Amino acid sequence: MPKYFMPTTLLSGKNCVKRHSRHLIHGKKCMIITGKHSAVVSGALADVTDVLKENNVEYELYDKITRESGISEIYALGQRMKTDGTEYIIGIGGGSTLDAAKAAAVYAANDIEPMRIYDEVYKNKPLKVVCVPTTAGTGSDTTQYVMLTLDDIHNKRSFSSPDCFPYATFLDSRYTRTLPLEVTRNTAIDALCHAVESYLNNQSSAFSDIVALEAIRLIGSCTDALVSGEFTEEDREKLLVAASAGGMAVAHTGLNVVHAMGHQLTCDKDIPHGRANGALLVEFIAWMAKQDIMRAVDVMSAFGSDLSSLKKFINAVIPTTEEITEDDIDKWLEKSIASTVTENCPGEFTKEDERFIYYNALINKRRKYTEW
Amino acid sequence: MPKYFMPTTLLSGKNCVKRHSRHLIHGKKCMIITGKHSAVVSGALADVTDVLKENNVEYELYDKITRESGISEIYALGQRMKTDGTEYIIGIGGGSTLDAAKAAAVYAANDIEPMRIYDEVYKNKPLKVVCVPTTAGTGSDTTQYVMLTLDDIHNKRSFSSPDCFPYATFLDSRYTRTLPLEVTRNTAIDALCHAVESYLNNQSSAFSDIVALEAIRLIGSCTDALVSGEFTEEDREKLLVAASAGGMAVAHTGLNVVHAMGHQLTCDKDIPHGRANGALLVEFIAWMAKQDIMRAVDVMSAFGSDLSSLKKFINAVIPTTEEITEDDIDKWLEKSIASTVTENCPGEFTKEDERFIYYNALINKRRKYTEW
Repeated sequence: MPKYFMPTTLLSGKNCVKRHSRHLIHGKKCMIITGKHSAVVSGALADVTDVLKENNVEYELYDKITRESGISEIYALGQRMKTDGTEYIIGIGGGSTLDAAKAAAVYAANDIEPMRIYDEVYKNKPLKVVCVPTTAGTGSDTTQYVMLTLDDIHNKRSFSSPDCFPYATFLDSRYTRTLPLEVTRNTAIDALCHAVESYLNNQSSAFSDIVALEAIRLIGSCTDALVSGEFTEEDREKLLVAASAGGMAVAHTGLNVVHAMGHQLTCDKDIPHGRANGALLVEFIAWMAKQDIMRAVDVMSAFGSDLSSLKKFINAVIPTTEEITEDDIDKWLEKSIASTVTENCPGEFTKEDERFIYYNALINKRRKYTEW
Repeated sequence: MPKYFMPTTLLSGKNCVKRHSRHLIHGKKCMIITGKHSAVVSGALADVTDVLKENNVEYELYDKITRESGISEIYALGQRMKTDGTEYIIGIGGGSTLDAAKAAAVYAANDIEPMRIYDEVYKNKPLKVVCVPTTAGTGSDTTQYVMLTLDDIHNKRSFSSPDCFPYATFLDSRYTRTLPLEVTRNTAIDALCHAVESYLNNQSSAFSDIVALEAIRLIGSCTDALVSGEFTEEDREKLLVAASAGGMAVAHTGLNVVHAMGHQLTCDKDIPHGRANGALLVEFIAWMAKQDIMRAVDVMSAFGSDLSSLKKFINAVIPTTEEITEDDIDKWLEKSIASTVTENCPGEFTKEDERFIYYNALINKRRKYTEW
């Protein structure tokens, strides 16, 4: 949609938590929400608590969020904050953690049943949320979207509200240094998918294009690092900015069919989110080239002279090793075409298009892209 | 500074005022502030009042803003709105008009003496302001800055407040169709200066760079149109987006020495704002190249293979015809070096640097840039 709105204050650069500490202080008591690991080993949690102590902000730490954390856990957390005097929330971690913080902020401020969060109507503004990402991919730190796990890890559902943009986000690439290489790669490709799905999107606008294209270019400039697994601090900074810029882009356009289709790979074959989407990306761009060759070329040219360069890069960093059959594809077709994001796809996107993308991406892997 | 915050909602595209009319409605009564001319001939005023009537919003029209409108006129307007039930303001026009709307919004909500607006502390949030620019240059529609005229046109002073970002901005390139060619050119070069001064700036960050560079590239893609004076709708859209992106960039970094130095040309020689800044731009970039050659090249390469291409373009669209002497330059040196924006200049910027830029830009015009 031709609308741009992104009210989150972004603080970036080395040591930004301490250098811009006033943006971390929004009351006398806060809840810090983290996963079990990255907030500690990255040093982010220590930086945050140092600032809170210096400023006499009382805090409580909830460090139990995992990919499996369900809506009932986050709801309970919200209920607890209603009575313990929590004024705002700091989320430190990857996408699951930041989304947990954003959802808990809604529950803490409203008397609603857990599932009513999806109605996207609640009386009171959520508590303020500050995000400190430790991965470079999710984009949750710059969007109004919140993805929650319902009964089990394979049943996720998102909601969206302009009130759910984080209040402030701190982007310090030092916090991504301790990420396992596989996570760095998967999340970088996830960020790339966000940017590409936003740029090749019915709802794109001049301003979403600016951030989407820059995210694509930034990741394009880090291909050598992502392949070799050796990152300079500048590479890490670029990937972190690209992830947030990718978030800013999809915040305005919504996602597209890559995420809808990739989700089936995650559900059925347990392929991690970023790798699942990345496996389908080149075929999506090739399909999009038939709708808008100029835009497809804009994306491609950040990675080389033809689409094969992008394919080669993705195969090098996140190869799909799982065995996929045509029967698998048949199972997935109905589910992903039913996703509302397919409406964001320029041109008519049919089940046969979907089959074509799945097939070429996952079975007919030797396909050449010299002509597309 | 490594901080990004731009809370204005941007609506863009053909007929966006009517297509996104709900973003124009923020109360039951509004004041429309315009200049004498462009709001009417561009069709913007008619589009806005159509939407207000359809939505039963009462409105009053104040159409007397000019470049000369002083702070007392705008203060009086603010006082009037205190008692007449005005709930929000719509500004339609160029920079002077949009800034008048932004300042009037502060006065309408606060009991302060006129000059206290520069203290940048006032109790109440300004009224909401909606901007509908009819020029593509000012960037006022995406910044927290407000420039006001004090006693006379040569005595202007700006203030800045995070509360002074417009609430919403409508960008419809149809409203710039009726601009005189000279204004289109001057304002485009002003926007280019904003973007370049933000990109070549101590305070730049990853996010200000994204919007600054895109503004530079967009204007770079319109050089043929700006030279010939023949614009497609796409050119006009690009220039309008570039102007707002340039605003988003300087909103985060502040301006730089080009604006401080150009201001003397406007005061002393009555050279219009955009043309005054444009006259100095190439020499500023040449000076900056000594501090950061890579960034200078980023700017330059949007216009050709060397700095001469940019110089040729600027000379073609906004030639400096005024006779400038070394005595003139001597008079200006103290004044512009005293501006606080010189602090944004990477490297040490001395009075001799300033003299060098003025001299080469305005007197030694045949200087070649094959080596810089």
